[in-house]
Amino acid sequence: MIKTLHFIALTMTILMVGCAPESGEPIDLDAERLAILEADRAWSETPPDVEAFVSAFADGGRLLPPEAPEAHSREDIQETASGMFSLPGFSVSWSPNFAGVSQAGDLGYSIGTLEFTADDGEGNPVTRKGKYTTVWRKQEDGQWKVVSDTFNFDSPAPTSGE
Amino acid sequence: MIKTLHFIALTMTILMVGCAPESGEPIDLDAERLAILEADRAWSETPPDVEAFVSAFADGGRLLPPEAPEAHSREDIQETASGMFSLPGFSVSWSPNFAGVSQAGDLGYSIGTLEFTADDGEGNPVTRKGKYTTVWRKQEDGQWKVVSDTFNFDSPAPTSGE
Repeated sequence: MIKTLHFIALTMTILMVGCAPESGEPIDLDAERLAILEADRAWSETPPDVEAFVSAFADGGRLLPPEAPEAHSREDIQETASGMFSLPGFSVSWSPNFAGVSQAGDLGYSIGTLEFTADDGEGNPVTRKGKYTTVWRKQEDGQWKVVSDTFNFDSPAPTSGE
Repeated sequence: MIKTLHFIALTMTILMVGCAPESGEPIDLDAERLAILEADRAWSETPPDVEAFVSAFADGGRLLPPEAPEAHSREDIQETASGMFSLPGFSVSWSPNFAGVSQAGDLGYSIGTLEFTADDGEGNPVTRKGKYTTVWRKQEDGQWKVVSDTFNFDSPAPTSGE
């Protein structure tokens, strides 16, 4: 009887150790969704700091901007961001309204709206509204980083007054 | 000695049963990536069939098209797709060049390029190149469905010849 109890106790211990997630904690998906939203909001504070903006991307992350080619590498992303952020009268703001996450809390996405302002050819500010989906992957250090950022505008580019 | 062997065998059996993923199979992430690419390619065959196009979306899925508002609901997506697919001279094609997937094989994304053609105001076909990120979630029946599709064009809308 005592041997049986020992056996059960030992088996349960092995099971608990063997089956525990690597982190040792159950995954709180609401917390992960909030972490993605928070990472996105923090990211939105980075422009026009190119370096801070680019640092949000994971290695291999991609930027898919409208009316411009896809940026594959960190150098490409840096070049694209530099080009955008140095437009006369440039400013951008965005805000997520939704985040989804995978069962293991390792991959997620945020969806939101944006406003992008730059001067037209005559120096008048033109603001365009848009929207985006950003895909995030949690890194080994626990930080969420961007693996894909795709955005567009809600209406075509306004034609110049010229 | 025999008791010890029995104990080890029983413990290993319990561990194997207790720790197996719910599906009973280890997750093959390469296979899941291929399944996402395949779902995306199959989806690209659906236009101009609005119903087939819309059926690729999961409940709550969103369509974020360029130069148009976001479509939140299945009805909105259907209306947006109907509008696009009925443009004079409309055709669209796309092809994924990358897919990523979560550790548990439940959430993923595809990135690719597209060509979108429609007639301009004078009846001349205008083709625009673009790119997209689509986020996919595996449904309970094992099918990958779209939870977010965001695309844009590589250059601004061509100005009309008028």
